[in-house]
Amino acid sequence: MSFRPAATVGMSLAEVDTPCLLLDLDAFERNLQRLPDSLKGLPIKLRPHAKSHKCPEIARRQLAAGAVGVCCQKVSEAEAMVDGGIGDVLIANEVVGAAKLKRLCELARRASIKVCVDDAGNVRDLDAAAHAAGVTLDLLIEVDVGAHRCGVAPGAPAVVLAKQITASANLRFAGLQAYQGTAQHVRKVAERRDAIAQAVADVRHTQQLLKDAGIDCDYVTGAGTGSYLFEATSSVYRELQAGSYIFMDADYARNEWTESGIPAFEHSLFVWTTVMSATMEGRAVVDAGLKASSVDSGMPRVADYADVEFVKASDEHGVLQYRSSTRFKVGDKLKLIPGHCDPTVNLYDWFVCVRNGRVEALWPITARGALL
Amino acid sequence: MSFRPAATVGMSLAEVDTPCLLLDLDAFERNLQRLPDSLKGLPIKLRPHAKSHKCPEIARRQLAAGAVGVCCQKVSEAEAMVDGGIGDVLIANEVVGAAKLKRLCELARRASIKVCVDDAGNVRDLDAAAHAAGVTLDLLIEVDVGAHRCGVAPGAPAVVLAKQITASANLRFAGLQAYQGTAQHVRKVAERRDAIAQAVADVRHTQQLLKDAGIDCDYVTGAGTGSYLFEATSSVYRELQAGSYIFMDADYARNEWTESGIPAFEHSLFVWTTVMSATMEGRAVVDAGLKASSVDSGMPRVADYADVEFVKASDEHGVLQYRSSTRFKVGDKLKLIPGHCDPTVNLYDWFVCVRNGRVEALWPITARGALL
Repeated sequence: MSFRPAATVGMSLAEVDTPCLLLDLDAFERNLQRLPDSLKGLPIKLRPHAKSHKCPEIARRQLAAGAVGVCCQKVSEAEAMVDGGIGDVLIANEVVGAAKLKRLCELARRASIKVCVDDAGNVRDLDAAAHAAGVTLDLLIEVDVGAHRCGVAPGAPAVVLAKQITASANLRFAGLQAYQGTAQHVRKVAERRDAIAQAVADVRHTQQLLKDAGIDCDYVTGAGTGSYLFEATSSVYRELQAGSYIFMDADYARNEWTESGIPAFEHSLFVWTTVMSATMEGRAVVDAGLKASSVDSGMPRVADYADVEFVKASDEHGVLQYRSSTRFKVGDKLKLIPGHCDPTVNLYDWFVCVRNGRVEALWPITARGALL
Repeated sequence: MSFRPAATVGMSLAEVDTPCLLLDLDAFERNLQRLPDSLKGLPIKLRPHAKSHKCPEIARRQLAAGAVGVCCQKVSEAEAMVDGGIGDVLIANEVVGAAKLKRLCELARRASIKVCVDDAGNVRDLDAAAHAAGVTLDLLIEVDVGAHRCGVAPGAPAVVLAKQITASANLRFAGLQAYQGTAQHVRKVAERRDAIAQAVADVRHTQQLLKDAGIDCDYVTGAGTGSYLFEATSSVYRELQAGSYIFMDADYARNEWTESGIPAFEHSLFVWTTVMSATMEGRAVVDAGLKASSVDSGMPRVADYADVEFVKASDEHGVLQYRSSTRFKVGDKLKLIPGHCDPTVNLYDWFVCVRNGRVEALWPITARGALL
């Protein structure tokens, strides 16, 4: 059930089979360093989200660049990270259901694990599962700071849940999860900044009510690539969860960045594709479609050819349209910039890591398909 | 790199972990039989497209129900089918590049393989690869019968290519690939019927020119679930490539079907999901997002609850909105009908096969991720 990678180490890029996922190591390594560099002197730590890469090889490099651990969204994703040598994982998400709680407790025996909650029944289930497993679990309360997805409302509801956690024999209240997800892809810098200012106000209000109730709450975590410097300078957040900065996809690139203070991350992730048909005037067809690049946030962009547009994807085909004189022939290979990096990475088993036109390494995406 | 399935055989559906891909065996088996039943008495054979299921267990059942073989889109997908015991595979797609041609020739040694072409250079490459491998390859010329994706224009260009093939020492001209892909999801029956009538006219014209050039061309293949009965009754097509009929996704269900003569296929494929958060008025959040159900053809539908709408997907979250009195609580499990079955199946390693509320089997999706 595992496929041969599209390349072998040492191969020239031209020989690499398609479609596959290319990682430009020079650009990746610059991105890897740029984010921690931008945080120098600030009282904030980095815990990058591993849902973007699902690859312990990358997680280890993030730790080497100063990260304190990683975030995951799923227990099975966290298992893959721990199996890959990562000892500190925040599951930045709610975990529900007996099977998953059992796996979560098993994982908490062999790594530092934190998990989010927003529901009293789920807190009871976590306490019971921790009791059965003989472990104590660290819980973050997720607060809805504007994304309107998961999380209790800021303020009093968080205090109710914190009291329940502190009264539970097998649970520890570890702080607040306050991720403003919808702000990340808002195009204008000022609007992203305002959204995070509101999130910060929501967190402060909640912290004050917790303090009034005698509950200490210093640890606050959140932020994504689109906004992280605003959280970092808030003096409220303790850790950042940015993930996409290492890859920089086409949708994030449509954000405005100047005057955000956030450094210019480079595209490092590409889908390598071959022209498989060129029978129509003005168009060519490549071998990368819906199963090679997720189109949830728009079509991929064609790298290096500003005058060629990727206009349509079907299961295994992508249609390119020429805007000027560029013409491809069957067999030509080119790079696509995925619309959305996370679900695109999840389609592949390997990163084909390239430097100076050669394959330098193959990194397995061991949490690919880790849905549970 | 392979994950534990979400279930074990014998488990009750309520115990099955989420998100996972459920196959309702009763509905699946009815669909499996309904399509061949609808062809009785017609001079047509069925070669279902395996890109929909990527699972030899399903391919074997299609053969048992009368299919003559399967279609694939990729060499690696065809390898997975041959490895799974399927001896006759049509790669209903162009195959480009030295690495793939080598694998194609290797595969042609151990199974009956046909492949499509629409480019003279590719035909030369195929002839050279076949020569190097000491095999003879069967080639179909893909004709663009209206989908405007791959394929040469009907008529003279196909004759030019057919002459090149018949003049190549290591190639056989095996017929025409004439798939009208864009017609499949046209909603109105009359418009689908008209599109296929045009495709049939294009094929007849091409066959006549081939005959005039002394080239026999009896074998014509194409059709999808949306139109197959029109091709089947055309007296031009010899084989049908329908694939989605076994699953019937939400997008296909939006087609009009009455008066098409095509039987009513049932939804048999579902994403099983858990409510993971329910803090907001009028909404709930489930644990199935973009990595659990492809949204390229629209959001999934909520099965069994006509008054609940799946309104938004992020990587690992789906937001449900209530339209009337239904309310879910954290831990409730429900079924989603994927918007598009093919790229959704490609996200999973297992079909969890269910009958009468019990897990009857786990079928591995061995061609999941077979992109090369």
